[in-house]
Amino acid sequence: MKQNISLEEAQEMLLANITLPEERQLPLIDALGKILSQDIVSQQNIPFFDRSPVDGYALLTSDTVTATSSQPVRLKVLEEIPAGYVAENKVTPGTTIKVMTGAPLPVGADVVVKYEEVDRQGDFVFLSKPLKFQENVVYAGEDVKQGEVVAKKGIVVSPALVGLLAGMGIASVPVYHPVKVGILSTGDELMSIGEALRPGKIYDSNRYTLQARCLALGLEPVMMGTVMDRKEQVADRIREGLKQADVFITTGGVSVGDYDVIQDALKEIDAEILFWKVDIKPGSPILAAMKDQKIIIGLSGNPVAALLTFDLLVVPLLKKMMGREKYLYSKIQGTMRDGFKKSSEKRRFLRARLMLEDGNTLVKLTGIQNNSALKSMMECNIFVDVPAGSGPLKPGDIVSAHVMGNIDYIDA
Amino acid sequence: MKQNISLEEAQEMLLANITLPEERQLPLIDALGKILSQDIVSQQNIPFFDRSPVDGYALLTSDTVTATSSQPVRLKVLEEIPAGYVAENKVTPGTTIKVMTGAPLPVGADVVVKYEEVDRQGDFVFLSKPLKFQENVVYAGEDVKQGEVVAKKGIVVSPALVGLLAGMGIASVPVYHPVKVGILSTGDELMSIGEALRPGKIYDSNRYTLQARCLALGLEPVMMGTVMDRKEQVADRIREGLKQADVFITTGGVSVGDYDVIQDALKEIDAEILFWKVDIKPGSPILAAMKDQKIIIGLSGNPVAALLTFDLLVVPLLKKMMGREKYLYSKIQGTMRDGFKKSSEKRRFLRARLMLEDGNTLVKLTGIQNNSALKSMMECNIFVDVPAGSGPLKPGDIVSAHVMGNIDYIDA
Repeated sequence: MKQNISLEEAQEMLLANITLPEERQLPLIDALGKILSQDIVSQQNIPFFDRSPVDGYALLTSDTVTATSSQPVRLKVLEEIPAGYVAENKVTPGTTIKVMTGAPLPVGADVVVKYEEVDRQGDFVFLSKPLKFQENVVYAGEDVKQGEVVAKKGIVVSPALVGLLAGMGIASVPVYHPVKVGILSTGDELMSIGEALRPGKIYDSNRYTLQARCLALGLEPVMMGTVMDRKEQVADRIREGLKQADVFITTGGVSVGDYDVIQDALKEIDAEILFWKVDIKPGSPILAAMKDQKIIIGLSGNPVAALLTFDLLVVPLLKKMMGREKYLYSKIQGTMRDGFKKSSEKRRFLRARLMLEDGNTLVKLTGIQNNSALKSMMECNIFVDVPAGSGPLKPGDIVSAHVMGNIDYIDA
Repeated sequence: MKQNISLEEAQEMLLANITLPEERQLPLIDALGKILSQDIVSQQNIPFFDRSPVDGYALLTSDTVTATSSQPVRLKVLEEIPAGYVAENKVTPGTTIKVMTGAPLPVGADVVVKYEEVDRQGDFVFLSKPLKFQENVVYAGEDVKQGEVVAKKGIVVSPALVGLLAGMGIASVPVYHPVKVGILSTGDELMSIGEALRPGKIYDSNRYTLQARCLALGLEPVMMGTVMDRKEQVADRIREGLKQADVFITTGGVSVGDYDVIQDALKEIDAEILFWKVDIKPGSPILAAMKDQKIIIGLSGNPVAALLTFDLLVVPLLKKMMGREKYLYSKIQGTMRDGFKKSSEKRRFLRARLMLEDGNTLVKLTGIQNNSALKSMMECNIFVDVPAGSGPLKPGDIVSAHVMGNIDYIDA
């Protein structure tokens, strides 16, 4: 068992030896938000055929070379083609076919002129200036070429991708099965919401926070409830949960106190302890273990520490387990809008919000930074990474930060 | 009916006279992703009581004033309190109570010293230096004060909020009912995915794109299928859809061509046309109408134009209808990474991706910008707003952009 390791070393140990979930084929719309398990290769060109992007007349550019307003060129209109239909005629010199937006370009034509730019008289149109070759024509394959990879394995199926695949006629999509995450809260002090609070007790919030985080990430939480600080009870729940879950998260009981039973419970079920304590603040007392190829992570019982370390350390693991190609956080640089008074003996992560102002990235701390302030996680979309040995931070200081998952909007 | 109006004027007309959805009370975890319909006011302090954030000894600061390593202060340990329990004794001069992380601060005590900083011998501990008043004590209400508004009506219930509310013992939450969005595709050229494509036809992608967009936004799509360009058929579907939906979106048939039947269909059902054509590119031929206090919006049939105008113009409407407090887009400034060769006679929106590099906001166009390229929407998280009358854009040019909905991650 390693102790007091760096965040990066802990991350690396967790990310080693991941097995990807099984695949399945889902109807297109059901695949929304899931992770592609195969590259999607286009079987055809998109658009399928050369087409007109405007209502107008398809004709030959060469017919228009001599056109002037005093000597307009006259072309015979052979027929009219709405979108969805194919012309019966070919366009030959001296002729044109009226095409509606989306209609296939008739054979022979190499340009389309908008209907408002010609003078229609009976079966004829008159053009008073030359046209540019291929103007107003969308060519087959302009968006996607046959054989092209339109979406890579490991990306989240987005609404735009759903639309793109629908346009290719793809009715079902290969995606990964969801990853199941066991969640267990431990602590004699915990009561369930809905119960009347007894003296010295608090409501268990971690199970809900982690359940919600997992749901929002597209994971399948397996709720194992709340259990008191008794080695045997904790061991039983973990053993039980591991039967259903692919990975298991506990909160509480990972410190050094006499009531910190997670480590003992893990020994009880013969799990191999990978590491204990990561050298960051808050949330240092993280415990990671492995049992039957499944990872078990014990997080702090403190709500802020639990959520912060879940986000920092566990989310990349879960994303990799889900099959996501991009599972590590992006890092950015930003300018502190406010200061932070404390020195940081240990490496410290501050909850903050990224704001964009006049093209600059500003970092605004989201409220007080002590461990009890779960409120500070509400607006948080970045974690400022303050190196060990740093003094207080001043407004204007440049800091680096980890960009957390979904950023709903950016404050402008 | 207004014609050729600005995006802002169109937006304003749509946002006028919104009625908010009904409210309902949902179990906390089911409220995730929904919109709060009431401010949430805390009924108590969080934490509920003064507590120790460390394993240690609770005592009186005044007892430690004279403590030195040569003359340590000796205190009698009265009892030991795990988290979840309350001390039977009070701390009086000369005494201390051992407290575990999360335990309530015993009456009388005003400071906690970490257990590793004292010397324990039998029933006594020895302190060799003075302590700082209130150190290692988390006071009641430090995170949330009784009577404080912890979450405002109109925000999305996030995982952190779920956790915060759970910590307050809140088991159910008032949220708005989901808004129902009718979606109808029109066009003779459209076929359904799964069918074999006939000449001149294309697969209907808009219904899937919009359905997916609505689902991702937490809306309830009411799928009205695909219908040919026949006034009566379109009118029937809209009439039918309006019985179930709160707002209705069509794609196709809004241009000036002979087959553009939406306007006629809307007249057929006695809808009041609000405006036709918005002065932007792409997606100009947008039609908006009102029938029985319900808004009907006809978008272009072109996949890119449909999605772009849905995002730009319709999403703010839908967000406001959902009860979201923030429904307008943020605007940012950024630096063009690449150029854009075309001049823009009309106001033009370019699909792009926001990237943060060394503290700067860079704007990267997401592929070719013609109307057929739905692929360009996949990576898109901002729309660059190019004013009418602009020339080509050069790398390094400063542009302004609308930040679209969810930004999954920012490229660093």
